[in-house]
Amino acid sequence: MTAAAETRGPGRPRTEGHDEKILAAALQLIDADEPVTVSRVLQISGLSRAALYRRWESMTVLMAAALDHGRTAIEIDTSGDVKAVIVELLFGDIEATRGKTYTERRFRKRIALVMENPDLQKAYWTSHVQRRRRAMVRALQVAVDRGELRADLDVDAAIDAINGIFYYQSIARGANFDDPVTSARCRSAFEIVWRGMVG
Amino acid sequence: MTAAAETRGPGRPRTEGHDEKILAAALQLIDADEPVTVSRVLQISGLSRAALYRRWESMTVLMAAALDHGRTAIEIDTSGDVKAVIVELLFGDIEATRGKTYTERRFRKRIALVMENPDLQKAYWTSHVQRRRRAMVRALQVAVDRGELRADLDVDAAIDAINGIFYYQSIARGANFDDPVTSARCRSAFEIVWRGMVG
Repeated sequence: MTAAAETRGPGRPRTEGHDEKILAAALQLIDADEPVTVSRVLQISGLSRAALYRRWESMTVLMAAALDHGRTAIEIDTSGDVKAVIVELLFGDIEATRGKTYTERRFRKRIALVMENPDLQKAYWTSHVQRRRRAMVRALQVAVDRGELRADLDVDAAIDAINGIFYYQSIARGANFDDPVTSARCRSAFEIVWRGMVG
Repeated sequence: MTAAAETRGPGRPRTEGHDEKILAAALQLIDADEPVTVSRVLQISGLSRAALYRRWESMTVLMAAALDHGRTAIEIDTSGDVKAVIVELLFGDIEATRGKTYTERRFRKRIALVMENPDLQKAYWTSHVQRRRRAMVRALQVAVDRGELRADLDVDAAIDAINGIFYYQSIARGANFDDPVTSARCRSAFEIVWRGMVG
């Protein structure tokens, strides 16, 4: 969020409408396998170049935001057992954790695009994945401080190991999380990693 | 390998030449972002439709083989300490483990293509990834039998957790394994997983 957005005045609601129109235009182009260009985004959204650049510094940043559209922010309540909350987050209502409107098709598209475009990959990582990881970083740090996890735990490496399990299912195996076999294997892999984080 | 190939007679070397020409044609198309069609493969390779279908049952299977071209088979010596051999394999000469001629560009292309084509993803998993995992499955089973790893270890889940670490670096972070920070984080994540496999 920019400083301008944080000190938003009465003009904000209108600008938010603009943001949504621009995101929708970018998504329409992405879903149609068309390049996300300034001219096409302006044409579809009906907005001005100024409105576009006021919010997005580049088409890469806009594409990253569009590809993340519908993903939910993650919150982890650390007042109780951290492991139980994380297990519920990862294996409970997966749809809610990902975002109800976020589809597998969109995920596949995102991965395909970032693999062909390293700048987009970096932008997506910095603006979206890394931000979403913050709740997990904090939760694991709380668990370390409380002695529920090893004092010398490399929290970043632990999160990579946990998230990697899910990436591997979708990308290497082409597995679906609705499949009970996949879900059980993820659960089992998670227990291996967590055990290594504790002891 | 088919039964025919296993009982190969004097005709085999010529057929191998054909196989390489067909693979090279498919790779040329993939690298040029062109669709891998029967007609284009025949045109580039100068071979017959019969030669093509003798070896590959479909363009999907051919594409999977082309995308795996240059990857090395993995061998794990289990006569000594299994963990040390796996660490050397994963963190020693990474280029040799992947295949000297296999490039990052090819990896990116493979992931992009499988994410857009679930049939190709399944073919690549079955014919290549799953096969390459076998040496690891056997090595971990030996380590379980010897008591170096937990008796109740879910070997498949453990391999997913280990491999997932590397997938996450390349795909989510867009990190390069030549970068010492990435390498150290992978090493740290591997130790977490291995610890969970032992204890």
